[in-house]
Amino acid sequence: LFIPRCRCLKTRKFVRVPITEVKVDEPRPHCNRREVIVTLKDGREQCLDPESKFTKELLKKL
Amino acid sequence: LFIPRCRCLKTRKFVRVPITEVKVDEPRPHCNRREVIVTLKDGREQCLDPESKFTKELLKKL
Repeated sequence: LFIPRCRCLKTRKFVRVPITEVKVDEPRPHCNRREVIVTLKDGREQCLDPESKFTKELLKKL
Repeated sequence: LFIPRCRCLKTRKFVRVPITEVKVDEPRPHCNRREVIVTLKDGREQCLDPESKFTKELLKKL
């Protein structure tokens, strides 16, 4: 389960669909930026911009 | 990627090994409790007690 590279090529500022899971990957050797990946209610995964207002609010709720 | 059941049978209050990823699953139809699953530096996954001091501190840092 080693996370080799960065996972997110493009990110969104926000999502409208309900979120069932939030994954936060801290910067690490193979990817020097923080990545926030949410799983949506329908199972799809979406990368979020860690710096967007929406994401910051989301992380605060955790 | 639909998360059918609860994933965590037993949880730990804290971990000492560095964490590379934090997953937070909100209560949902098939699992009515919040679950916090961390990926450790060596790739292993560990469930954390969402209510422990360690976990609360961890989530605050996100």
